[in-house]
Amino acid sequence: MGKYRVLIDANDEKGLVHKVSTIFYKNDLNIISNSEFVDKENNKFFMRSVVDGDIDLASFKNSISDMMPDSANIEVIEPKKKNIILMATKEMHALGDILVRHEAGELEANILCVISNYDDLESFVEKFDIPFTTISHVDLTREEHEAKVLECLSSFKDIDYVVLAKYMRILTPNFVEAYKDKIINIHHSFLPAFIGANPYKQAYERGVKIIGATSHFVNNNLDEGPIIAQEIIHVDHAYSWRDMQQSGKDVEKVVLSRALKLALEDRIFVYSNKTVIF
Amino acid sequence: MGKYRVLIDANDEKGLVHKVSTIFYKNDLNIISNSEFVDKENNKFFMRSVVDGDIDLASFKNSISDMMPDSANIEVIEPKKKNIILMATKEMHALGDILVRHEAGELEANILCVISNYDDLESFVEKFDIPFTTISHVDLTREEHEAKVLECLSSFKDIDYVVLAKYMRILTPNFVEAYKDKIINIHHSFLPAFIGANPYKQAYERGVKIIGATSHFVNNNLDEGPIIAQEIIHVDHAYSWRDMQQSGKDVEKVVLSRALKLALEDRIFVYSNKTVIF
Amino acid sequence: MGKYRVLIDANDEKGLVHKVSTIFYKNDLNIISNSEFVDKENNKFFMRSVVDGDIDLASFKNSISDMMPDSANIEVIEPKKKNIILMATKEMHALGDILVRHEAGELEANILCVISNYDDLESFVEKFDIPFTTISHVDLTREEHEAKVLECLSSFKDIDYVVLAKYMRILTPNFVEAYKDKIINIHHSFLPAFIGANPYKQAYERGVKIIGATSHFVNNNLDEGPIIAQEIIHVDHAYSWRDMQQSGKDVEKVVLSRALKLALEDRIFVYSNKTVIF
Amino acid sequence: MGKYRVLIDANDEKGLVHKVSTIFYKNDLNIISNSEFVDKENNKFFMRSVVDGDIDLASFKNSISDMMPDSANIEVIEPKKKNIILMATKEMHALGDILVRHEAGELEANILCVISNYDDLESFVEKFDIPFTTISHVDLTREEHEAKVLECLSSFKDIDYVVLAKYMRILTPNFVEAYKDKIINIHHSFLPAFIGANPYKQAYERGVKIIGATSHFVNNNLDEGPIIAQEIIHVDHAYSWRDMQQSGKDVEKVVLSRALKLALEDRIFVYSNKTVIF
Repeated sequence: MGKYRVLIDANDEKGLVHKVSTIFYKNDLNIISNSEFVDKENNKFFMRSVVDGDIDLASFKNSISDMMPDSANIEVIEPKKKNIILMATKEMHALGDILVRHEAGELEANILCVISNYDDLESFVEKFDIPFTTISHVDLTREEHEAKVLECLSSFKDIDYVVLAKYMRILTPNFVEAYKDKIINIHHSFLPAFIGANPYKQAYERGVKIIGATSHFVNNNLDEGPIIAQEIIHVDHAYSWRDMQQSGKDVEKVVLSRALKLALEDRIFVYSNKTVIF
Repeated sequence: MGKYRVLIDANDEKGLVHKVSTIFYKNDLNIISNSEFVDKENNKFFMRSVVDGDIDLASFKNSISDMMPDSANIEVIEPKKKNIILMATKEMHALGDILVRHEAGELEANILCVISNYDDLESFVEKFDIPFTTISHVDLTREEHEAKVLECLSSFKDIDYVVLAKYMRILTPNFVEAYKDKIINIHHSFLPAFIGANPYKQAYERGVKIIGATSHFVNNNLDEGPIIAQEIIHVDHAYSWRDMQQSGKDVEKVVLSRALKLALEDRIFVYSNKTVIF
Repeated sequence: MGKYRVLIDANDEKGLVHKVSTIFYKNDLNIISNSEFVDKENNKFFMRSVVDGDIDLASFKNSISDMMPDSANIEVIEPKKKNIILMATKEMHALGDILVRHEAGELEANILCVISNYDDLESFVEKFDIPFTTISHVDLTREEHEAKVLECLSSFKDIDYVVLAKYMRILTPNFVEAYKDKIINIHHSFLPAFIGANPYKQAYERGVKIIGATSHFVNNNLDEGPIIAQEIIHVDHAYSWRDMQQSGKDVEKVVLSRALKLALEDRIFVYSNKTVIF
Repeated sequence: MGKYRVLIDANDEKGLVHKVSTIFYKNDLNIISNSEFVDKENNKFFMRSVVDGDIDLASFKNSISDMMPDSANIEVIEPKKKNIILMATKEMHALGDILVRHEAGELEANILCVISNYDDLESFVEKFDIPFTTISHVDLTREEHEAKVLECLSSFKDIDYVVLAKYMRILTPNFVEAYKDKIINIHHSFLPAFIGANPYKQAYERGVKIIGATSHFVNNNLDEGPIIAQEIIHVDHAYSWRDMQQSGKDVEKVVLSRALKLALEDRIFVYSNKTVIF
């Protein structure tokens, strides 16, 4: 007896729910939760079910595949801890929030390693008995530096997600491609406002009354990947840009941890540079 | 060809989704949206589907009933404007928000009448070409007054909801029973805090940093019916209780209109003094 | 005996608070509330006091002027209803919210007139006994149309604020200059994201999880004037852009009414394309 | 040259601001920020100023005392790290958030010690090089246990605040009196709703749509001390009470850290079982 997450996306057509629920029924599965969404504009069907029962994973997956249209992507996942890599630079807040949640048993994740281009966070990370690797970018081209990071990553097998917890370097298309839809970033602004460097200074100069943070998957266009979660806080004229930055940290860590949790629970579909989140 | 909302609740058992989706499939219906929830603790199943197709309403409903367990409540609703009665006392904000939304075509509702125990709002309501009836409570017992209100209500057939838009009188069990799960109230506090009279004064004296409003169905225990929607705003020491009351009005109208919209779209199940909202 | 709002901004220097409070003291005034802010970066001092007492307005103002540096702007305002003009196009939600607040006595304002480039809202506005003027832009150049609007405005004396309650036309620098820091707009997005036309469609396509609205003074750069208030709501993948637009309306009216209230209470300083709000 | 926080509360009377600003002026101090509030109902005046300059602390304080009414409480504080004790039981989230902020240099505080009635958190706390003391309550009366805790506390001198980061034991009046207005608690509910044990279960059973957390100073009536900060999150029918509890943790840690920051920056006045926060 086990619990399984079934994720299906496909071109929409009549009868998809019927077909899937028939398979669940024939396999004597309990449906614990069930979410569906159809994007009419793009004619795409999305479904996430949590089911409970006694199945042979491979044959169950085959029986769904046989029923579904060719366009379908089908995942049947037995919930277990996912393997994640954290990348950071010098800031502690977003990284620390994930490390404490991990320590408290709140995350369905094994943190394999923290990689940074500086060693500032080394002693902090090692308190949590998590391996820390410094890969300095000094005197290296972007490509050379990334090659080293990729090499380090390749030493771990089965990486589910790479989480950029304030990793302050731009990734090349080559890197992004290697971990497509697996790199989760936190951007210190309410995207798409204030793309680029020092968004808090930009926000301060524009005199905004709200600042925000956005967690998104990374794609080849900087800051333009599919958005997973966003949150804001109110500010006023008395905030210097450094005050905004400090307050921003509190939003950043909330949003990144929220996005990571959604990913670890297999709640996110990515398509058309957007996310469907159940 | 039409669009239908199908609402089902039943004691949970295996295969319910399968059965319903089979009927949808056999009737050649498109599923536009579909939401399910199982309350494990109470073993209750809830499902709301919006489907599109060409059916005979009565026979379709029968075919669902035949498949479902005896415990099931089944509604197949052809979306149309619902008939609502608004009740108010002297305050304009919550009532006015509904009247403007109605005028703007935002509500799937016909407002049959506004009933008040005072005539203060009469000229305001009549601007909107909505009938206004004053039923004064002066010199009447609560029962006598309610008898008059009930008589007035009974002159309208097919009332879907009675909306208390700051109607400042307590309803008797008799009244509540007559419109069970059809009376929507806005309570000027974040229930269950500050039950009873003048919650803003209570909130002020307690020195809270947040005030809120709660919309709920009315049952026999004052302020204890099933909650539909809640919202809050932040306040600080500089707010007098009248400032809190004024700010509270802005939350009240938002929450009541939100709850009403959910009701009009048939998104609410009531059970066990709670709501399931899809 | 009366109540006065004293607003001062000046280049910052030592002793400003001392000087002002000395004048208050000598005039035997009660300070009801007092807010100060110094923008260190720009070396600007802002102060808003509400005082209570018996003064000669002109000589009191002079005595402050004498004490303050030459750079100072000083306003001593006896609170009274301000004169406002509302401008709209076809949408009812933001306009309706202001009209109901006005009717309920929530606003310190006289609404002199509603001006629109269409007559769709005429019967709605006239319900509230507010004059409505249609000034069609059809077959006119932007300049010709604005000349007519300006002519209409000039028929009212002492206009304090022109409120664009979803007035869907761009104003020329000429118009803006004529009512500098007096035109309050509501922009249907969380500026500076999604500047320009159909922000909800832009937001939908970007797959955002939050939509917002921004109220700001209008300056010569479209959508770039000083921000007064901003608010957001959460959305998800199930929102079509029309759903976002509908939800957006609820935020827009909240934000515009909040900004208008701040203006009517003389709580806003404008400088350096920003606002200081007490 | 230094920076000072001046906090004054007194019975209100005319000229207080004038008197204080005169002293600032005579001492050639720059006012960096200045906040005032008068509670008309209780006739109380509150003022917090941050000033910059070169003063003799003792004589400066005396000169203020000489000018102020006898009722006045005056504090002139040279900002420095405050000494805090953290108390916890078994949960890591609120404690961990404070420890990471401390490590990141975000807090103006020295954490002298963490005290718990269990040793579950010992290894976690010691990662941060903070002393951890287990004082078990097993086989002790409440008074005996508290006597041990008080003895432990008395071994530290100059404790500014005792922070209950999910310390799950009720304190006696004796304990509270010993650290009056110095004990900051986080209550896992939006007080005054759901006072007492297992508020998440109460909230679940009531079917609320919002859950919250409240940080407050501890007084002799459990959960009824002066409120410092409150925050909420939205929940829905799909949340079990354990889900609410888990989500609640995220609010709890945000609210407790926010309250602690306000305390460390000397921004809180306590009076009449309320707080004034600048």
